[in-house]
Amino acid sequence: MPAPLRIGLAGLGTVGASVVRLLDRQAAALTARTARRIEVSAVNARDPNKDRGVDLARAKWFGDAVALARSPDIDIFVELIGGADGPALEAVEAALSAGKSCVTANKALLAKHGLRLARLAEENGVALSFEASVAGGVPIVKTLREGLAGNSIERVYGILNGTCNYILSRMEREGLSFDACLKEAQRLGYAEADPTFDIGGFDTAHKLAILTSLAFGVQIDAEAVDVEGIQSIRLADLEAADELGYRVKLLGVARRTPDGIEQRVAPTMAPKSSAIAQVMGVTNAVTIDADAVHELTLVGPGAGGEATASAVVADIADIARGVRSKPFGLPTSELAPLEPAPMQLHLGGYYVRLCAYDRPGAAAAIAARFAERDISLESIVQRRRPGAEGGPPGTAPVVLITYATHEKTLREALEAAVADGFLAEKPQFIRIERE
Amino acid sequence: MPAPLRIGLAGLGTVGASVVRLLDRQAAALTARTARRIEVSAVNARDPNKDRGVDLARAKWFGDAVALARSPDIDIFVELIGGADGPALEAVEAALSAGKSCVTANKALLAKHGLRLARLAEENGVALSFEASVAGGVPIVKTLREGLAGNSIERVYGILNGTCNYILSRMEREGLSFDACLKEAQRLGYAEADPTFDIGGFDTAHKLAILTSLAFGVQIDAEAVDVEGIQSIRLADLEAADELGYRVKLLGVARRTPDGIEQRVAPTMAPKSSAIAQVMGVTNAVTIDADAVHELTLVGPGAGGEATASAVVADIADIARGVRSKPFGLPTSELAPLEPAPMQLHLGGYYVRLCAYDRPGAAAAIAARFAERDISLESIVQRRRPGAEGGPPGTAPVVLITYATHEKTLREALEAAVADGFLAEKPQFIRIERE
Repeated sequence: MPAPLRIGLAGLGTVGASVVRLLDRQAAALTARTARRIEVSAVNARDPNKDRGVDLARAKWFGDAVALARSPDIDIFVELIGGADGPALEAVEAALSAGKSCVTANKALLAKHGLRLARLAEENGVALSFEASVAGGVPIVKTLREGLAGNSIERVYGILNGTCNYILSRMEREGLSFDACLKEAQRLGYAEADPTFDIGGFDTAHKLAILTSLAFGVQIDAEAVDVEGIQSIRLADLEAADELGYRVKLLGVARRTPDGIEQRVAPTMAPKSSAIAQVMGVTNAVTIDADAVHELTLVGPGAGGEATASAVVADIADIARGVRSKPFGLPTSELAPLEPAPMQLHLGGYYVRLCAYDRPGAAAAIAARFAERDISLESIVQRRRPGAEGGPPGTAPVVLITYATHEKTLREALEAAVADGFLAEKPQFIRIERE
Repeated sequence: MPAPLRIGLAGLGTVGASVVRLLDRQAAALTARTARRIEVSAVNARDPNKDRGVDLARAKWFGDAVALARSPDIDIFVELIGGADGPALEAVEAALSAGKSCVTANKALLAKHGLRLARLAEENGVALSFEASVAGGVPIVKTLREGLAGNSIERVYGILNGTCNYILSRMEREGLSFDACLKEAQRLGYAEADPTFDIGGFDTAHKLAILTSLAFGVQIDAEAVDVEGIQSIRLADLEAADELGYRVKLLGVARRTPDGIEQRVAPTMAPKSSAIAQVMGVTNAVTIDADAVHELTLVGPGAGGEATASAVVADIADIARGVRSKPFGLPTSELAPLEPAPMQLHLGGYYVRLCAYDRPGAAAAIAARFAERDISLESIVQRRRPGAEGGPPGTAPVVLITYATHEKTLREALEAAVADGFLAEKPQFIRIERE
């Protein structure tokens, strides 16, 4: 048997400690699978004395991640520090430049520097693996990169942030407000004290950008993602969605269009019958539409120490077996620049909730603004539901479902309706994503 | 760029023709992904003159699959002939012995000869890949073999036969009888003229045996699968299941138990809230319970030319990239013999439907037979539902749900109830599979 494969692990938080634990627990099986013994030979973390519940007695301690990454004592560098720049970036660059394969769970790093790091890995003939960066324990990176090699992918979309799905699921199930569910998520440790990164959709956007590159063979471009968070979602929207046969989910959606590649993160209406709509709580799910396989959905844990560590260890095992996948499936020279499709050209159905002053002619005037732009309505409902979260006194909710229309046209119709003076609040609109 | 990778393809049915089409359609992307041009250089099929809608002008024709498998004109042998023995087996053996990697979709072949063929591949340092053999386009083999390398798997179960799931879905949705749905499936081409292999559960058993070997690192043993088909399922069962919060699915289930590995195929009650229960029609789904990743579900097309070809092409692409995975994840010398857990020791909840003579004391006597064996009942319902498929005149249906009990104990209770003379028909019982 060849010499052991020596892992240098930077970052010993929940995921890092779980990686050490899994490598230990599965040592015999991993040796059998990879024909190599895998050992954590060096680590870096802020506090060497903290008890992490794992045995690191045989590992060499480094105070500096970059020094660890460069060390001749390691064969593979595992980056679990986090952050798009700083030590995580410097250490990964150092490791790749030193000819060491890297495994990372860092979506922010990849979203910002993925292409450059993939080039660096390629130049040095090493792997840059990041299964854990998207949807935690769900093997979606491997599926896109290897499992669907014979397909042309048309769309990839999913629930990529457990915090948002937890909040939306509780709002829907228990009829609670967004604020109440956010507080509950914070109390349970599902949401950070500053939840902006999750609920604002930015975490989902980073993950979506990675999936887009893998699915469409394009250069990663997280800046091109149109991002909207779940803060604007009201219980009234979830209740109306339910009545109309939909669920509201924070979806990341990437798809090929005649105008380029559309990448968007937003609260979205998914038909209740779709696989994605069934996914409740902190679970993640990704659906892929491809020409040969038609539709494939993966559902599993999007976060958590052991689930994320499972993905990190799978990457390590592949590298141990000698597999050197191209980070984004194709050589970086073959990754085309991403041509973003303008969201104004988005074509689809919409859910629209308006808070109209309760006076004669309001609904008719609103409907006219849609009709004059040839926006066909699948349904229009004007009524106050008993016990529903209401608008100001003297107003009535109007809920519309449109047939496919361009986003630009819809926005113009809504602006015209606002200008007419019949609306008491900013209109709410949510895209409908069909299976 | 190295010389083209030459594929020898035996079997040009729906899947074979789709493989040729996909390799052609994705030629540029596959070359970029694998750094090799992939070409179908030789083929074997019964009728060389049949129009299959694909261009095979440049491929050399072989009248004999074994001669093709041995031919120096090919680098990889793709077996799509089918059948556990005969030309499929001979050709795969010939190819592996000649040092050629093999790709196959043939579950029957693997179920019967998988271990021996894996040894032969290992001895010759080549790959034996079979993603297409289980759940068609769903990358479940890759997920178990590579994606969950850091996990210890406790259970793998799923819907692995589209024909059965189509029949059960239609029975449930439209209130049709088993026979009517089978006829409809045959008319639509979802079921064979002789449907025994599908509806008898044997197809699922072959696929399950493959998953068991991959999941638990044991020698494949399809003979050890306890198999029951869906022929015995009545509309009354689906209706009762619906009322009780379940759906009936033909599940293949493999799990570790203290008594060995349990492998069973049978109509099974899945809670409606489970991911598996949502899967309707010809779609397949597999759920894996593992220690690190907890629960992972893959849902996608289990059959169809292009979906199955997608899996075949992914295997070819891996081989083209130089990856030589061990067929069952571990070296064959490390695959432990499978110790089957006797089904009599199965511990779980049961659904029981009895057709009792409608006379005083019947329900009480039946309940006593359960009570004296310490079988606790979660529910007992004795009533005729309006419009339900009934038993003979003068009888009433009794539906019981038990808490966890041993199968042996349940069978004894049912035998005692039969002996008491209160039952007009053979008792129906269905295992309940919890998430």
